[in-house]
Amino acid sequence: MSDQRVDKPASGVSDLGYARLDTDRADRTGDPEVVYGAGKTPAQVVEILQTLREAHPERAILATRLTDAVIEAVGAQIPDAVVDEVARAVTVGPLPQAQGTVAVVSAGTSDAPVAAEAALTARVYGAGVKLVNDVGVAGLHRILAAREELVTANCLVVVAGMEGALPSVVGGLTGVPLVAVPTSVGYGASFGGIAALLAMLNSCAPGVTVVNIDNGFGAGVFAARVARNAR
Amino acid sequence: MSDQRVDKPASGVSDLGYARLDTDRADRTGDPEVVYGAGKTPAQVVEILQTLREAHPERAILATRLTDAVIEAVGAQIPDAVVDEVARAVTVGPLPQAQGTVAVVSAGTSDAPVAAEAALTARVYGAGVKLVNDVGVAGLHRILAAREELVTANCLVVVAGMEGALPSVVGGLTGVPLVAVPTSVGYGASFGGIAALLAMLNSCAPGVTVVNIDNGFGAGVFAARVARNAR
Amino acid sequence: MSDQRVDKPASGVSDLGYARLDTDRADRTGDPEVVYGAGKTPAQVVEILQTLREAHPERAILATRLTDAVIEAVGAQIPDAVVDEVARAVTVGPLPQAQGTVAVVSAGTSDAPVAAEAALTARVYGAGVKLVNDVGVAGLHRILAAREELVTANCLVVVAGMEGALPSVVGGLTGVPLVAVPTSVGYGASFGGIAALLAMLNSCAPGVTVVNIDNGFGAGVFAARVARNAR
Amino acid sequence: MSDQRVDKPASGVSDLGYARLDTDRADRTGDPEVVYGAGKTPAQVVEILQTLREAHPERAILATRLTDAVIEAVGAQIPDAVVDEVARAVTVGPLPQAQGTVAVVSAGTSDAPVAAEAALTARVYGAGVKLVNDVGVAGLHRILAAREELVTANCLVVVAGMEGALPSVVGGLTGVPLVAVPTSVGYGASFGGIAALLAMLNSCAPGVTVVNIDNGFGAGVFAARVARNAR
Amino acid sequence: MSDQRVDKPASGVSDLGYARLDTDRADRTGDPEVVYGAGKTPAQVVEILQTLREAHPERAILATRLTDAVIEAVGAQIPDAVVDEVARAVTVGPLPQAQGTVAVVSAGTSDAPVAAEAALTARVYGAGVKLVNDVGVAGLHRILAAREELVTANCLVVVAGMEGALPSVVGGLTGVPLVAVPTSVGYGASFGGIAALLAMLNSCAPGVTVVNIDNGFGAGVFAARVARNAR
Amino acid sequence: MSDQRVDKPASGVSDLGYARLDTDRADRTGDPEVVYGAGKTPAQVVEILQTLREAHPERAILATRLTDAVIEAVGAQIPDAVVDEVARAVTVGPLPQAQGTVAVVSAGTSDAPVAAEAALTARVYGAGVKLVNDVGVAGLHRILAAREELVTANCLVVVAGMEGALPSVVGGLTGVPLVAVPTSVGYGASFGGIAALLAMLNSCAPGVTVVNIDNGFGAGVFAARVARNAR
Amino acid sequence: MSDQRVDKPASGVSDLGYARLDTDRADRTGDPEVVYGAGKTPAQVVEILQTLREAHPERAILATRLTDAVIEAVGAQIPDAVVDEVARAVTVGPLPQAQGTVAVVSAGTSDAPVAAEAALTARVYGAGVKLVNDVGVAGLHRILAAREELVTANCLVVVAGMEGALPSVVGGLTGVPLVAVPTSVGYGASFGGIAALLAMLNSCAPGVTVVNIDNGFGAGVFAARVARNAR
Amino acid sequence: MSDQRVDKPASGVSDLGYARLDTDRADRTGDPEVVYGAGKTPAQVVEILQTLREAHPERAILATRLTDAVIEAVGAQIPDAVVDEVARAVTVGPLPQAQGTVAVVSAGTSDAPVAAEAALTARVYGAGVKLVNDVGVAGLHRILAAREELVTANCLVVVAGMEGALPSVVGGLTGVPLVAVPTSVGYGASFGGIAALLAMLNSCAPGVTVVNIDNGFGAGVFAARVARNAR
Repeated sequence: MSDQRVDKPASGVSDLGYARLDTDRADRTGDPEVVYGAGKTPAQVVEILQTLREAHPERAILATRLTDAVIEAVGAQIPDAVVDEVARAVTVGPLPQAQGTVAVVSAGTSDAPVAAEAALTARVYGAGVKLVNDVGVAGLHRILAAREELVTANCLVVVAGMEGALPSVVGGLTGVPLVAVPTSVGYGASFGGIAALLAMLNSCAPGVTVVNIDNGFGAGVFAARVARNAR
Repeated sequence: MSDQRVDKPASGVSDLGYARLDTDRADRTGDPEVVYGAGKTPAQVVEILQTLREAHPERAILATRLTDAVIEAVGAQIPDAVVDEVARAVTVGPLPQAQGTVAVVSAGTSDAPVAAEAALTARVYGAGVKLVNDVGVAGLHRILAAREELVTANCLVVVAGMEGALPSVVGGLTGVPLVAVPTSVGYGASFGGIAALLAMLNSCAPGVTVVNIDNGFGAGVFAARVARNAR
Repeated sequence: MSDQRVDKPASGVSDLGYARLDTDRADRTGDPEVVYGAGKTPAQVVEILQTLREAHPERAILATRLTDAVIEAVGAQIPDAVVDEVARAVTVGPLPQAQGTVAVVSAGTSDAPVAAEAALTARVYGAGVKLVNDVGVAGLHRILAAREELVTANCLVVVAGMEGALPSVVGGLTGVPLVAVPTSVGYGASFGGIAALLAMLNSCAPGVTVVNIDNGFGAGVFAARVARNAR
Repeated sequence: MSDQRVDKPASGVSDLGYARLDTDRADRTGDPEVVYGAGKTPAQVVEILQTLREAHPERAILATRLTDAVIEAVGAQIPDAVVDEVARAVTVGPLPQAQGTVAVVSAGTSDAPVAAEAALTARVYGAGVKLVNDVGVAGLHRILAAREELVTANCLVVVAGMEGALPSVVGGLTGVPLVAVPTSVGYGASFGGIAALLAMLNSCAPGVTVVNIDNGFGAGVFAARVARNAR
Repeated sequence: MSDQRVDKPASGVSDLGYARLDTDRADRTGDPEVVYGAGKTPAQVVEILQTLREAHPERAILATRLTDAVIEAVGAQIPDAVVDEVARAVTVGPLPQAQGTVAVVSAGTSDAPVAAEAALTARVYGAGVKLVNDVGVAGLHRILAAREELVTANCLVVVAGMEGALPSVVGGLTGVPLVAVPTSVGYGASFGGIAALLAMLNSCAPGVTVVNIDNGFGAGVFAARVARNAR
Repeated sequence: MSDQRVDKPASGVSDLGYARLDTDRADRTGDPEVVYGAGKTPAQVVEILQTLREAHPERAILATRLTDAVIEAVGAQIPDAVVDEVARAVTVGPLPQAQGTVAVVSAGTSDAPVAAEAALTARVYGAGVKLVNDVGVAGLHRILAAREELVTANCLVVVAGMEGALPSVVGGLTGVPLVAVPTSVGYGASFGGIAALLAMLNSCAPGVTVVNIDNGFGAGVFAARVARNAR
Repeated sequence: MSDQRVDKPASGVSDLGYARLDTDRADRTGDPEVVYGAGKTPAQVVEILQTLREAHPERAILATRLTDAVIEAVGAQIPDAVVDEVARAVTVGPLPQAQGTVAVVSAGTSDAPVAAEAALTARVYGAGVKLVNDVGVAGLHRILAAREELVTANCLVVVAGMEGALPSVVGGLTGVPLVAVPTSVGYGASFGGIAALLAMLNSCAPGVTVVNIDNGFGAGVFAARVARNAR
Repeated sequence: MSDQRVDKPASGVSDLGYARLDTDRADRTGDPEVVYGAGKTPAQVVEILQTLREAHPERAILATRLTDAVIEAVGAQIPDAVVDEVARAVTVGPLPQAQGTVAVVSAGTSDAPVAAEAALTARVYGAGVKLVNDVGVAGLHRILAAREELVTANCLVVVAGMEGALPSVVGGLTGVPLVAVPTSVGYGASFGGIAALLAMLNSCAPGVTVVNIDNGFGAGVFAARVARNAR
C-alpha cells in the first residue's frame, strides 16, 4: 500500500521481513543478540534463532519470554537447544566461560521465574551465578544465614514482589553493587508490581539500582557486565 | 445570606458558630474529644480547648497539628497546658492512668514528629508508651537489639517513610498487633508517602494494618484502644 | 543452569524445592503457618498442607485463595479438611479454643467472600467470631439495629466496597478497635477497590486502620491477635 | 506581535480586551453572568462587575473566588456590593425572589467555605436556601436530627471532604435529588479531595451526582435550576 | 464456621440468605427497589425479582446489568417481564404514569447501552423520556438541530465517551439541569472512561453534574427525581 | 421503552438505526468518511461501507481496527475491497492521487501494525507514503542511514513503544513537522503505552506533536493534511 | 572535583561554561536557536542572547518563559529587544518574512499567555499569525462566527484548559491540520492540565495532535513549519 | 511524654539525640557514612560532620543536599571542608585514591546539579570520574563525539530529565554498565521527573538500571562500587 519502502540494510544487518537482525551488535557491545519471544510466533522464533546462530556459531544465543508452543517448536527443530522451564527461556550454543559471580536472591516462591530469568541471563552474558531463593524479610534469620554468600559475590540481583523490602535489608548488610527487580507478585494495592517498584526506588540503603517490573533479563545483563569485569 | 439556618443542637452538643462540639462523645465511645488544629486560628483552638475542658474537667483534652502561633496562644491563655514540641501538640488536664503498653518504633530521625504524635496520643487515650527511635531496615542489628522491647508490648506502632519496609521486618519478629504509619519523608518517586503507604499495604508479614500518611494520631488512638483492654 | 545453589536450610525449615516452609514460625510469632493458595497447583497445596500438618499435628492449618480444583484435590486427599465455600478456604486440624470476640461487619452481599475469609481466619487464629452481613450505609436503621453486637466485641472488622463509607459510620458508634477492609466490589471509578481504600484511609472516625484491598486474611489475623489478648 | 487580530464581536458581546463578556447569556440560559475571580486583578473584577451591571441593572451579579484585595477594591468602588466573607464572594444588585428550597449540608467546619459558596450561588440563581452545618457521618444522631429539614427540600447539596461518606448516608435517608461536592479538606492520601471525589462517584445510594472538587458554585447553579422549577 | 450470626431482620426486611431485601425502602425514599444484576446468578436474580414483586405488586421493579443467561432465565420464569436488549435490563410490573420529561442525549453509537440504561431507569422512576442519539461534538449541526428538544425537557442526561465534550457544548445551549455520564468508550489514554470523567468534572458550562463511568442507572434515577417534581 | 425518539436527520445524514452517517462530511472537511471497526459486527461494517460507497463512489472509503471475522465478511461481500493485513484495515474504491510525501518511521517490529495503519491512512487521505521500519534508538547507525529519506518528506510520523525516544532523536535531525505515535508495546512500568506517551509529550526536540496511544489513524490523517498542501 | 572534564566542543558549538550553544543548529534544522528562560539568571539569558545574536545577526532570536527580572535586564542591556508581555518572551533581531498563516484559537482569557507564546513563536519561525481569543465551547455562536478565519489558515493551534473540548469542536468544522495545546487552567480534578490533555488525546475529531501542557512554544514551532511550507 | 525510652545504643553507635550515628557502618559495608542534609539545621549538620570525622579521621565524609545557610556554617566552622557549589555538597577529610573510572553524562544544563552530585559521590566512594555535560539526544553529533570517553569507563551514570531518552541512546553505543538518573527537569506532563523515570525503566537498550528521581547520590555510590572493583 505504501508508495515506497526504505530497506537497504547496512552491512551487518539481516532483514527477515518482520525483523532486522543487527548481527554486528555483538562486536559493538560485547554481548550476544537476544530474542525477546513475547508476541512472536514459534516459526518466527525458530527462524531468528537459526539466523543468529549462523552469524554467531561460536557462542550462546538466548531466547526469553517463550510460550509452551514456542518451547516445543524450538525443542523439535533445534535439537541442541537447552530449555530452562522456570525461566521460560532457551539457550542455543556453547555458554561462555564464567567470570566473576552474580548472586541472585529472591523473596518468595512466586518470584522464582523472574529470578531464574535473571540468573540464566547473567550466565549467558558471561558471569558465574549463585541462586539464593525464598529469603523474605519477614524471616530475618534466613537472610542472615545467607550473608556469607552475598558478600562474596561481585554483583547482587535481588528479586521481590509485594512490598519490595528485601533489597533494603540486603543492601544494609553488604557493600556489593545491588540491582533490585520488582515483580508483579501481589494483589490489591500492589498494582501489578508498582508498590514494589516504588519501594525499591526509595530504598534507604544507598547504592541500590532498579530495573523494570519482572525484568529479570535486564538485571541479568547488567549484573553480568559488572561481574565479568570485576577483580 | 442564607434564608434560614438549622441549628437547634441536640443536647450534648455545644455550638460555637464555627464548630459543633459533641460533648457527649466521650460517653459514647469512651474516648476524649480531640482538637484537630490544622486550619484553625489560635483564638479558635483556645476557645475550643476551654469549652471542652469545662465539659470534661476530670481528664485530658488533646490538640494536634498546631502551628507555633497556636502553641504560643495556648501557652499564654491556658497555663497548665503541656506542650510536646516534637509532636506539635498540647494536652490540657490530667492524663489517665496508663493501662497496657504501646511500643512506638520509628525508622529515621525525620519520622520523629509522626512517632511523637502517635506516642502522645496513645498516652492520652490511656495506654503506657515506649519509644524506640531510629531503627531503619538497613541496620538490622538495631532492630534485633530492640526485639525484647517489642514482644512485650500489647500493640506496636511502626513509623517509616521512604520504602516503608520496617513494618514487614518487625512484623516478622513478633505476633503483637502492629499498626504501620507511612510518613511523607522521602523525595522523588516517594510521592509524599505513597511509596511507603503502598509497601505497608502489601506487607508480606501477616497482621499488619495501616493508617493514612503521617497519621500518627489515628495510629495512637487505635493502639491505645487495643493496649488498654489487653490482659 | 546456575552454577551453585545455596540451600542448606537452617533447622526448623523444610525445603520442598518450590518453597521453604518455616516450621518454627508458630513458636516465633504464636500463630500457625498459612498456605496462600493463589498461583499454586492442587498438588503443591496438598503437599504443603500435609507437611505443615505433620509439623503441627496439634492445631489447625489454614489455606486460602483456593480454586475449585484445589478445593476438590484437598477434599479427596485430606479427608478431615473442612471447606468454607464462601471464603474459598480450608482448615485442617482442630480449631483452637475461642478467646475474645471479633465482629465482622459487611456492607453488601458482594462483600461476603472477603468477610468470610476474615471471619474464618480470625477463628483459626484463636478468636470467637460474630458475622453481621449486609448493613450498608444507605440503610442506617440496619446499622443502628446491630449496634449492641458491635460494642460488645473486642475488635471489629468492617468490610465494604464502592465508596467504603461503612467504617466511618461504625467507627462513630463505638470505641472498639476497628480494622477496615476495602473490597474490589464496584465499577467505573471504583478502580478495583482504590476508591474504598482511599475513603477508609481518610476516615473521619478516629482509630480506624486499614488493610489491602480484599485482604480479609490480614484483617482476620490482626483482629484475632487483638481479641484473644483482650480482657 | 501577531499579524492580525480577529475581534469583531457579535452583538451581545462586550470586548474588554482581556475578556469578551457574553451579555446575551442571561437571555440564552435564564441565568445571570458570573465573574470567576481567580487570577483576575482587583481592577479587572471591578470593571467586569460594572460592565455586567450596566447590562443587567435589574438583577444580581455574582463574583466568586475573590482575594482579600479584590473584596476590598469591590467594597470601595461598588458601594452596594454585598460581601460573603465565608464564601469569598460578592453580589451586586437585587436578589431574585426565592422559588423552591435548596438544603446545603456540610460535614465539618473546614467544609464551610465551599458550602457557603454553594448556598450563596443557589440563592443568586433564584432558589431559597437552608444551611445544615457540621453533620459528619461519625455522629449519626446529628444527621438523623436534621432529617426533616432534608426531606422537605427540593434539592440537596451535600459537602464533605476526607472520606466523602456523607452523601451516601444522606442519600439513604431521602429521595430528594442530591448533588455531592467533594472538598479538598484532608491530608495524606486524601490527595487534595480525590478520595472524597471517588467515594462520591461510587456512592451506593442511587441518584447521587457529583461536581468537581471544591466546586460549590457549580453545585449551587445546578441545585437552583432544580429547585426553582420544582412543584 | 462463625460462632454466631446476627440476623434478626427488622420488620420490612426480607432475608434471602445471600441478601437482605429492604422492602420498606420504597416508602422511605419514594422509589422502587432495584436489582443490580452484576455478579448474581440467574436463580438469584429471579428469586429477588419475585420477592420484591410480592412486596410491591402495584408497580415496576427494575433489574440492570444482566447477562444473556439471566435475561433468558427471567424471560422463562417471569412471563410478563419486559426486556430492553440495548440496556441489558428488564422491568417487571406496571410502569408509573410519566410526569415531566427527561431528555437523554448520547454522543456516539457506542454510547447507546449506557444511554438506554439511563432512559429506561428514568422511565421506571416515573419520568417521561426522549432519546437523542449520535450527536457528537465534531458535528455541531446535529446538536444545533436538536436544540428545541433539549430546552423543553425538565432534566438532561448527556452520555459521552472519548473526550467527553458533549455536556459542555449542550450545557452552553440551555439552562436545563444537566447530568453528564462518562462512558468507557475509547482507547489508549482514555483509560476506560477516566478522560471523559475528568473532562465532565471540569466542564466550563456551569451547572453540570457527573455520575460514575457507565452509570446510566444513577443518572436516570437522579433525572427522574428532578423531572417528576418539575412544574 | 422510551416515550419518543428524536430522529429526523438533517439532509446529508443517513440513519442506519445503530449509526447516523454524516455523508456531507467530506464536503465539509475535505476528507472521506471512515469506519472505526472496533466493537462493530461484520454485518454492520459491511452495511456502513456499502452505504458510504454509494454516497462517495468516486473515492476510497477506509475501515480500520477490523477483526478477522470482519475482514472475511468484507472480502466476501465487497469484492473490490483491498485488505491491509498488517494494518487490520481495508479500503474500498479508488485511491486519490498522491500529493506530497509522508514518511512513517517505526522503532521496532512490534510497532509495525500501528505504523501500517498510519501509512495506509495517510495514503487514503491523499498523500504519498514512505515506510522506514525498525530503526530503534539503541542502533543509531540505522537512523543516520535513513536521514536522507526523512529530510525530504513533507511530514514525519514516528511510531515507538517502550521508552518512546525515537521522536526526540529524529526530531533533532530534521526540521520537518513530526507527529509522534506512542504504542502500547512494552511491559511492566510501560503501563500500556503511558511511558512512551509521556516521553513524547516531553520531547526535548522542538516541534514534536503527539497523538493517542496506538492511534496510527489520527497521525495519518494529520500528516496527510500537512503533506498534500505542502509546496 | 572531577578528575577530568570532556569539553573540546565540536566546531559550531560555543561553550559558555553553563551551556553549550549549538550555533550550527539553524543550518541543520532550518530554525533559529531559542533560549528557554526558566531557571536561568538574568545575566545568563543576556549573555546567551548576545552570543546567539553574534552567530545569527541576520535573523530573530527568541527567548521564552522569562521572569520580570529577566525581561528588565534584557530591556536594559539589549536595546532593540522586543518584549511580548503576555507571552513572557522577547525577540532580538529582524523577524523573517511571513509565509502562510497560523490561526491561534483560545478558549478563555486565562489561556491567553499560552496562546500568545504559540503565536509569537510561530511568527519568529516564519509564519503569519491570526489570533482568535475567548471562543469557549459553552458559547458556540462565537466559534461559528470565527469559522471563516479558521478554514483559511494553513495550520490551527487551539489552546484550552478545563475540559479541553475546544479542539474537538473546531476539528469538526474544518480539515485544516490542528495542534491542540492543553493549559494548566482549572482547579480540583483538572490536575494542572491533565484533564484537558487527556480530552485532547481522545478527541473524536480525526487529525488532532497534541503538545505538552502549556507548551505554546512547541505548538508554535510545529505550526510554523507546516504553514511556511504550505501552498 | 513517653513513659520510657529505649536507647542503650549498641557499641559503634553515637547517639546525638536527634540521630543515632552508625559509626561502624564503614567497616560493615566498606563505605563512609554520609550526611543527608535535607531538613537538618546548620548546627545539626556541623555537629554530625564533626562527630563522624572524629570516628573516621583517615578519610572523607560527604554531606549532600545542603542549603546556602548550611554551606556557610560548615565553611565557617570546619575550615578544611571543600564545597561543591553545583552539587550542593561538601566533603571533609582526604579523598581516597581513585580506582577505576566512572563517566557521568548529562543531557542538559539543567541536569548539572544532579550530575555533579553523582560525580562527587562516586569520587568520595573511591572511583575516578569523568564528566560529559550537555549531550542531549536532539544533537546526536555531540553524543557520537563523546563515544570514546564512554566506552573506556568502567561504569556510566547517565543523567536526563524531560523525555529521559539519553540512556537508551548511550546504552546502544556501549556495553559498559549504565545507571540512569531521571531528573525533575521538565514541565507539564513531565510530572516532576516521572516521564523520564518511566522512559528509563522501559529503555530498549538492555542492561540499563535506574535510581530515584534526582538521586545523583545513589547513582554515584553504585557506580563507584562497580568501578573501584573493576579490572
